[in-house]
Amino acid sequence: MHDMFNAKSVAVIGASETKGKIGYDIMKSLLNYYKGKIVPINPKGGKIHGIPAYASIKEHGLVDLAVITIPAHLIPATVEECGETGIKNIVVISAGFKEIDEEGAKLENQLVEICKNYGIKLVGPNCLGIMNTYNDMNASFSSDIAHKGKISFMTQSGAIMAAILDYADKKNIGFSRIVSLGNKAVINENHCMKDFMEDENTEVITAYLEGIVDGPGFIRASRRASRKKPVLVIKSGRTSKGSEAVSSHTGTIAGSDSAYEAAFSQCGIIRVNSLDEMMDYSSALAFSPLPKGNRIAIITNAGGPAIMTTDVAIKNGLEIAQLTCETREKLKEGLPDTASVKNPVDVLGDASPERYAFALETVLEDPNVDGVIYLVTPQSVTDAEGIADVAIEHAERSEKPILCSFFGGTSFEGAEKLLALKQIPNYLYPKRAVKSMKKLYDYSIIKDQEYPKSPEFDVDKVAVKNIIEEAKEKGMHTLGLESFDILKAYGIPTVGTAITKTLEETVKAAEEIGYPLVMKIVSPQISHKSDVGGIKLNLKNRGEVKVAYEDMMENIPKKEPNAHLEGVQLQKMLSGGKEVIIGMVQDPTFGPMLMFGLGGIYVEVLKDVKFQIAPVNETEAKDMVAGIKTHELLEGTRGDKPKDIDSIVDIILRISQLVTDFPEINEFEINPLMVFDEGDGALAVDMRLMLKEGGFDNLLQPSGEAMSLRSSN
Amino acid sequence: MHDMFNAKSVAVIGASETKGKIGYDIMKSLLNYYKGKIVPINPKGGKIHGIPAYASIKEHGLVDLAVITIPAHLIPATVEECGETGIKNIVVISAGFKEIDEEGAKLENQLVEICKNYGIKLVGPNCLGIMNTYNDMNASFSSDIAHKGKISFMTQSGAIMAAILDYADKKNIGFSRIVSLGNKAVINENHCMKDFMEDENTEVITAYLEGIVDGPGFIRASRRASRKKPVLVIKSGRTSKGSEAVSSHTGTIAGSDSAYEAAFSQCGIIRVNSLDEMMDYSSALAFSPLPKGNRIAIITNAGGPAIMTTDVAIKNGLEIAQLTCETREKLKEGLPDTASVKNPVDVLGDASPERYAFALETVLEDPNVDGVIYLVTPQSVTDAEGIADVAIEHAERSEKPILCSFFGGTSFEGAEKLLALKQIPNYLYPKRAVKSMKKLYDYSIIKDQEYPKSPEFDVDKVAVKNIIEEAKEKGMHTLGLESFDILKAYGIPTVGTAITKTLEETVKAAEEIGYPLVMKIVSPQISHKSDVGGIKLNLKNRGEVKVAYEDMMENIPKKEPNAHLEGVQLQKMLSGGKEVIIGMVQDPTFGPMLMFGLGGIYVEVLKDVKFQIAPVNETEAKDMVAGIKTHELLEGTRGDKPKDIDSIVDIILRISQLVTDFPEINEFEINPLMVFDEGDGALAVDMRLMLKEGGFDNLLQPSGEAMSLRSSN
Repeated sequence: MHDMFNAKSVAVIGASETKGKIGYDIMKSLLNYYKGKIVPINPKGGKIHGIPAYASIKEHGLVDLAVITIPAHLIPATVEECGETGIKNIVVISAGFKEIDEEGAKLENQLVEICKNYGIKLVGPNCLGIMNTYNDMNASFSSDIAHKGKISFMTQSGAIMAAILDYADKKNIGFSRIVSLGNKAVINENHCMKDFMEDENTEVITAYLEGIVDGPGFIRASRRASRKKPVLVIKSGRTSKGSEAVSSHTGTIAGSDSAYEAAFSQCGIIRVNSLDEMMDYSSALAFSPLPKGNRIAIITNAGGPAIMTTDVAIKNGLEIAQLTCETREKLKEGLPDTASVKNPVDVLGDASPERYAFALETVLEDPNVDGVIYLVTPQSVTDAEGIADVAIEHAERSEKPILCSFFGGTSFEGAEKLLALKQIPNYLYPKRAVKSMKKLYDYSIIKDQEYPKSPEFDVDKVAVKNIIEEAKEKGMHTLGLESFDILKAYGIPTVGTAITKTLEETVKAAEEIGYPLVMKIVSPQISHKSDVGGIKLNLKNRGEVKVAYEDMMENIPKKEPNAHLEGVQLQKMLSGGKEVIIGMVQDPTFGPMLMFGLGGIYVEVLKDVKFQIAPVNETEAKDMVAGIKTHELLEGTRGDKPKDIDSIVDIILRISQLVTDFPEINEFEINPLMVFDEGDGALAVDMRLMLKEGGFDNLLQPSGEAMSLRSSN
Repeated sequence: MHDMFNAKSVAVIGASETKGKIGYDIMKSLLNYYKGKIVPINPKGGKIHGIPAYASIKEHGLVDLAVITIPAHLIPATVEECGETGIKNIVVISAGFKEIDEEGAKLENQLVEICKNYGIKLVGPNCLGIMNTYNDMNASFSSDIAHKGKISFMTQSGAIMAAILDYADKKNIGFSRIVSLGNKAVINENHCMKDFMEDENTEVITAYLEGIVDGPGFIRASRRASRKKPVLVIKSGRTSKGSEAVSSHTGTIAGSDSAYEAAFSQCGIIRVNSLDEMMDYSSALAFSPLPKGNRIAIITNAGGPAIMTTDVAIKNGLEIAQLTCETREKLKEGLPDTASVKNPVDVLGDASPERYAFALETVLEDPNVDGVIYLVTPQSVTDAEGIADVAIEHAERSEKPILCSFFGGTSFEGAEKLLALKQIPNYLYPKRAVKSMKKLYDYSIIKDQEYPKSPEFDVDKVAVKNIIEEAKEKGMHTLGLESFDILKAYGIPTVGTAITKTLEETVKAAEEIGYPLVMKIVSPQISHKSDVGGIKLNLKNRGEVKVAYEDMMENIPKKEPNAHLEGVQLQKMLSGGKEVIIGMVQDPTFGPMLMFGLGGIYVEVLKDVKFQIAPVNETEAKDMVAGIKTHELLEGTRGDKPKDIDSIVDIILRISQLVTDFPEINEFEINPLMVFDEGDGALAVDMRLMLKEGGFDNLLQPSGEAMSLRSSN
């Protein structure tokens, strides 16, 4: 989008001299600041704002950028004309497309097609326009251009663009590029992300998004961008999954926000929840060096606010730096007796600018200090401007971040202006300075983040393909543990299991699996197996297996005469393991999303799970295990031995590969996966795999057999 | 403190004409606004700021209030003199008391004694002073008096008083009374709470506190106050329990902040974490009617901000009101076609004041709407002042709260001023309007809160007294399940248990308790009983008990030749119950604090517990059970039957009474309490009770016997 933002000539198609028309506003916006060539296009011709108008873009010929404000139904033909003229950059301000109705959606599709044919980059339709302050170009509704600055902003809401510009004007916050995304027919957040990343005037990338067009593309673009510049995103609009049928725990727990949460953290995006946070963090990130660690010093002229600041800092994961003996000695020498030379450093209510300067210099030199919160309250003798000058002078040359909180009102107006003018981050409330410092620290880690590739295991993809094909042919789309071969093909260990139909088969299978065993009746009509004697535990030998089988076949029909007994399921009895769940659901934006949690109440009641978008790499798989609140339970607690976390990680990675290889898998879950002590591995005990619908039976009525196998208690 | 705030004459002891002296500042502060009589006191006499000075307070005689600014060591004599003169209200500004050293603490104690003798109310020492805007009285350091308003504020930090006044001046926020509490030698937060509650000009009580002098008194005062007026408190300063020895789970988990958290919620205090929240919520609470419910309507001229507002509202526990058909019909008729008549009501970017007025009136009339968020963004045609006027007009007569968010900057300055002038709550960011609305709703519930008395059970207090006395005599201070009689005396059911020393005793006890039984070896030297065969489960009859006993006595000495076997412990084996913990620790501020949680990992790993300060009433006991995150597990989930919650509540109430009756109990815990299905009750299986130290053996070395009984595995 370099050419679009750096256009040397702009045509306004639909330019107008009539106040109230969009074509009037856009012309005014451009005329106010733009130094390039402005070409008004209007079929009536004549002069517009004193500039000769052309009847059509063809009549004029090539420009670097065309801004279109004419009614929607005329736009496809006009864009076509632009294409024929060789124009590559277009902004469509006009509304009346897919945001309105079916008819509008059709018009929008036409635009997309035309743009494809001519290789046109089109912003909008239905947007407020774009700005590049470094080209003095305001091709937008907003009459004033933003101040020059280091923040670039893309927004899916025009009103938020207007509000932020108005607010930024008051606070002297500057921008580099601004894009109102509108309907995102052609240009979307991924293009802007790339552009802002490449723009040398942009230091911080910010975005207000209500949705994302291309999830995987977004992850790729953001990973690249976030290593070069901080990326702050507000994602609003919680959508509920609504009536969509889900039949796994994973599906029940995963909301659409889980996917955004996971994706953002996987690609180094700093998610913010409100515009005030976005502005606070942006100004720190745009103008401060990054701290080398999370140890902060607080300099203050009053105790109370320093205590509050300390509380907030600890709560937000920062550390209160332990000052070295040298620092404390030096402070003791240079400060009055009653000053506090422990961190927070209290320079007392009567502190002069010189005393602040001495304290600031001294703590900045301390190797234990990674950043400074510079706290000032209005006391009767406080020389606020002088103290602000000290902050400015040091902030401009320090390699450690200094964030100010001039915590007052009327008497600090002068100091605030001084700081704003020099773009030194200053926050009314100390809390906001602390939270901004935390983001500086967070970004210092994100910046160096590596995104290694996911491992590729040597698996039997063909075997899985065959199982899935076969299921499709049969019209099944829910597979249970009878399809354990899928796991085996991907190298995931499974517990010995068999479904058998006769006594002979059963005894033979039992010998193969080994003892002790559990036997469960298989019958679609029986949901509470234990009530009818349909579960036999701890079968220790061939004889016990035989007795159990015969007992079931004889006695269950007496209790459930209408039940059709299909056979029995044998499974090796396990002991000493811990149950975990690994699952996957398809997210409409980001594709396959993995879930990890401990089994039973941890998932069902506590909802203590961790999501990640697949494919995951080893670090991410480890993060999934470490990311649940109850991970201590796997690491050995209360005398328990640590469990085999390496096996869990390995299986997560294999499942990641499986669901990535087979996008037709709609939901997937191993529940439970039994994890044994460290070094002893893990075994899948049950699984559930749902294929995407497409001529298959309805999701809500899974095949009887798989269903009955799961409903054991 | 009525007389202090409404003083008609004020003496300044230490009044001065020398700039830089405190006695100078205080004189200036008073002279600027105060209409009562000002009496400067200075041994040099003469005139101060044109007013004749007296050499001593005695020379002048009675005044309503004396403000003292002379050096600390002279103050006790001066306060004595004030007492003799009949002065009842004093503010000591001077520092140099317990905040400095031992010597200062002694001086402060002298002050306290003198005040007691004369019945003097003394604010400070070491404070900034007091203000009452409705008496035009500024008896403080701060040169400017606050604007008249409805908020009263007490603060333990003078700097925060200065900062808030400065901020409030800029934002046109008014106050009624302000107190800088200083060292709280005599007057503390409880006196101020009562005074603010009674002050007819105060609508909202706010406080910044770093500690509380008298916890139980604070709870009483706050319960009374919070039913009349909202009470907002910032409690800062996290203190760690440090090295204090604790030996129960309750003690390990309870931090000092748990007690504040519990106490505040038990007495209707709205806890806030920062000054910006305090200011935001105060202005809503001071000027808006309370909503009848949590269903809000959002009126907006832009979609994006409305979506964000909706997100925040839902996240904060508000509901987006479902507008009635009539409302939607009416809106449809009166608004343009493309407007959204579903909540959020989008009146579109070109909305005029009239259109806002129509939408506001219409939604206010809707019975499904409890309050309105009035959202405005700057669009090219927005008449911000006109739209603000609409809000003002309606807010002034509506019975439903209307909170504004004029979300912009430069172009909203005029509108902001209009709203501030009329004291209509307005927030830059919609998020803050929403959070303030939530506090209005919270307070609508707190206001009607009942605080019924705790029940008084018919218990055998004497029996417990005797057990405790006996333990003290023996020098024991840790009691285990050998002291189950304490529970029995308070009507708490316990599992059948006995400690026996011979085979004969053991068999007899077994017959009494009933089968099945568990037998455990009792020996202070054996910590892992099961390793040496010191635990026998499921003993079903007299014969099995005999065999088990003989086996232990014969074989354990072979494995642990140095262990002294004191006997065995028998306990009825329980099945089907759920383990919970009920505990208590003494909090230094609030006294006995109860804890409830589910047993095992829920407490140890998840720290999922709920605290309340004792004594608790029935509602609070129920809240403890309902207040843990995993309470579902008690209510019946995954096919489990609901557990007997009534029994838990009953036992919590009985323990509340026990620990209140015996303040010498330092820590207490029933762990586990086995809770059975609804109607089947609960049984204490083990307990641990620690008496306060005072000549007893050290907490870290509990008596061997009790210790060994607990360390079974």
